[in-house]
Amino acid sequence: MRQHAARDPDTLHRHLHDVQLLLSRQRLVEGLVHRQSMAHQDLVESLVHKQHEAALGRKLERLHPADIAWILEALPFTERLLVWDLVKADKDGEILLEVSDAVRGTLIATMDRAELRAAAATLDADELADLAPSLPTGLMQEVLADLDNEERQQVHAALSYPEDTVGALMDFDMVTVREDVTLEVVLRYLRRFNALPDHTDKIFVVDRGERLRGILTLESLLISDPDTEVAAVMQGESVITFAPQDDAGSAAKAFDRYDLVSVPVLDGARRVIGRLTVADMVDYMREESEAEILGHAGLREEEDIFAPVIRSVKNRWAWLAVNLFTAFVASRVIGLFEGSIERLVALAALMPIVAGIGGNAGNQTITMIVRAIAMGQVEPSALRRLLGKELGVALINGIVCGGGVGVLAWTLYGNAGLGLVMTAAMTLNLLLAATAGVLIPLIRQRFGKDPALGSSVLITAITDSGGFFIFLGLATLFLL
Amino acid sequence: MRQHAARDPDTLHRHLHDVQLLLSRQRLVEGLVHRQSMAHQDLVESLVHKQHEAALGRKLERLHPADIAWILEALPFTERLLVWDLVKADKDGEILLEVSDAVRGTLIATMDRAELRAAAATLDADELADLAPSLPTGLMQEVLADLDNEERQQVHAALSYPEDTVGALMDFDMVTVREDVTLEVVLRYLRRFNALPDHTDKIFVVDRGERLRGILTLESLLISDPDTEVAAVMQGESVITFAPQDDAGSAAKAFDRYDLVSVPVLDGARRVIGRLTVADMVDYMREESEAEILGHAGLREEEDIFAPVIRSVKNRWAWLAVNLFTAFVASRVIGLFEGSIERLVALAALMPIVAGIGGNAGNQTITMIVRAIAMGQVEPSALRRLLGKELGVALINGIVCGGGVGVLAWTLYGNAGLGLVMTAAMTLNLLLAATAGVLIPLIRQRFGKDPALGSSVLITAITDSGGFFIFLGLATLFLL
Repeated sequence: MRQHAARDPDTLHRHLHDVQLLLSRQRLVEGLVHRQSMAHQDLVESLVHKQHEAALGRKLERLHPADIAWILEALPFTERLLVWDLVKADKDGEILLEVSDAVRGTLIATMDRAELRAAAATLDADELADLAPSLPTGLMQEVLADLDNEERQQVHAALSYPEDTVGALMDFDMVTVREDVTLEVVLRYLRRFNALPDHTDKIFVVDRGERLRGILTLESLLISDPDTEVAAVMQGESVITFAPQDDAGSAAKAFDRYDLVSVPVLDGARRVIGRLTVADMVDYMREESEAEILGHAGLREEEDIFAPVIRSVKNRWAWLAVNLFTAFVASRVIGLFEGSIERLVALAALMPIVAGIGGNAGNQTITMIVRAIAMGQVEPSALRRLLGKELGVALINGIVCGGGVGVLAWTLYGNAGLGLVMTAAMTLNLLLAATAGVLIPLIRQRFGKDPALGSSVLITAITDSGGFFIFLGLATLFLL
Repeated sequence: MRQHAARDPDTLHRHLHDVQLLLSRQRLVEGLVHRQSMAHQDLVESLVHKQHEAALGRKLERLHPADIAWILEALPFTERLLVWDLVKADKDGEILLEVSDAVRGTLIATMDRAELRAAAATLDADELADLAPSLPTGLMQEVLADLDNEERQQVHAALSYPEDTVGALMDFDMVTVREDVTLEVVLRYLRRFNALPDHTDKIFVVDRGERLRGILTLESLLISDPDTEVAAVMQGESVITFAPQDDAGSAAKAFDRYDLVSVPVLDGARRVIGRLTVADMVDYMREESEAEILGHAGLREEEDIFAPVIRSVKNRWAWLAVNLFTAFVASRVIGLFEGSIERLVALAALMPIVAGIGGNAGNQTITMIVRAIAMGQVEPSALRRLLGKELGVALINGIVCGGGVGVLAWTLYGNAGLGLVMTAAMTLNLLLAATAGVLIPLIRQRFGKDPALGSSVLITAITDSGGFFIFLGLATLFLL
């Protein structure tokens, strides 16, 4: 909506290339300055340098803060800081909000306290609260000291709610009116504003104690006769509202389900204390889905792709350590049967098939159950039915898949017993995978844990160790 | 915003339990009727039955279509159809739009053509186009015949754009005005509407040929002097617009980046042909992230959790088949070294560690690269830098992780050479994983393919077979 927003990736890439071109010219100039250090040359080069810098500055001035944030993320470290220096200070705050956490750190590290205070001064209370965790210690106190009393309270309020609650995401911009005035009065009142809060699709109707009486949509305001009283056209009953301690995920689902744009946030006494908008919810949904996808690969956070290697190692370590442990356990399970493998070495070649297919099928089951839980559609009472269904799927897959693999093993090694053991082990491991895939998330849910977290590691650990144990155990019993 | 929307999961669950309670009472009555078939009893029971049915109907009448959709998804097959029969016909269309594809099929299968035509008649052109693929063949022709000419063209237009384009997601509801009238005239014009299109945050300013001249936000309309002309307060330049063939994913990013609520869709001659709203984008984002998460586990679509086993088997087969093939290849790689394993059986116990850690690390790399590509921040020119970084991470992990595992293997088997081979194999397999993790998505991207699709299978296949080959190969060379 603002000027020069780049609506598609092509335009964004063009902007990025422009910036890179200007940067490379500047680097060229810097190179020249280094090589030819005669006084008069210096002057010329420094003028040319200034020219390029000015061109880059003008380019940046025309870009939307969200686009500059994107470009900063796409630039390697030195170029990023060069561009960041050239960005007009009044955009700093908004850009810091837009960049990813990883990149925000690199930008803030280059700013002194005065710059950071100036950047903070351009932000609203709710935005300040978002930025607070990234600021150097002590600075937030100085920033708070710059605010008026109401804003300071708002920042404190926003910071007091846990992450992932409505209170942490709400903003404090809103328009309120009384119910006993006419729409004409409301229209005249609005004309005294210089701007309305972003995403104003409704006006909150409150009483003298700031308690919500209803909502007046801009639609009603615009299509109704101006002589009508607010009370006559406002929605009073069954208005959707949130409490600040409500879960942000549930709020996002409500926005999705009922196509909301803005929703009032009420305290225990039904006083309007803030507002949640669809823009907050879109951000939240994107971050959640990113976290979920990164989590599947055991990554804790989004990485700055140009971050130093050591930071990336830290981000990836936790999961690898867990995996190392589970792999070691699986390895010890195999160790139990080393005697059997020595006598029938085909077991070594076949065992990864049993474990691998089990892990795959288990991941499918657990993904399905975790999603159904997230949609709120699975209750512990549905356990038997779900388990029955997943065991049915596992049985069919075991007989078909396992049967095929069994025939293959028989053909390869000319050992019908080996084929039979393979089929039986595949089927049993798939049944184990289905059971664990249903039970793990449901048990985690019952104990109030996030059913998704680490579910993939757990199921793979079970199907690996379990698969090796079942296959090698059956082989030891029946073949040796 | 509509009546009786359930804003949180608790309320939704209460609704679900109410429905289940009413259903169970009804079942009880049906049971009685079956057992005691005396004429006068029949009458009484059938009255009681009717009473419960009526109570359930009243309950459903008060619920938002999106909530009924959720309840239908959460109910097993027979209960679902019972409830579906009781839903008032005028809600049928909206509910069909809200339920998942899997559940929609089960509902449509119970409706006759007349019911489906009636349901379709309650929908807008863009909604009809969404429903079209689920309708029985031929019915769409009848539905189209019921429409007026303009609507029919709109449906055809919406159907003519490929899935995942702006054209397939846009709606056709909008308010347009001319630029040479005053805001007072616009305000009077709006008062003639009974309702504004959902998510109207701006009015499109067009010339006589329906070409976009600018946009008038409701904000400007409300805060400006009514005597002002539209042209004076409208945004004319650098308004964000889409073309119908634009990619829906890029549009969603633009909504996210610039906090948009509604955007005009223009044809080649800048005529306004439709409108995209944030509600469409929220739906799109949710579906995309679901598809991505399901895709990670190799599931093609969301499953109706109460679907028959055979449907689930089909949904899960494709991936298992691929996995079966890659597992078989890995098994044959091991087969090459059966002689070595016979001579040193510890190799069989240790080899899954090498393969497993490699797969894990490879998945981390590929997830990171795929996300960076999706954000548009990786270009082929960044290849060398990315590869360098990932190889660095792999080397550190290989030396640390692999070193630890090497010491462990040495301690367990009292064989220092085995420990060294283990460390070397882990490091090499991690380097292989890093290389493949960077190259696979970049190569797929260069050939215009989706870099994410099946990336996890591919990388695991490489690190499994590669890991076995490297470890067993090194062991054969140096230990035997």
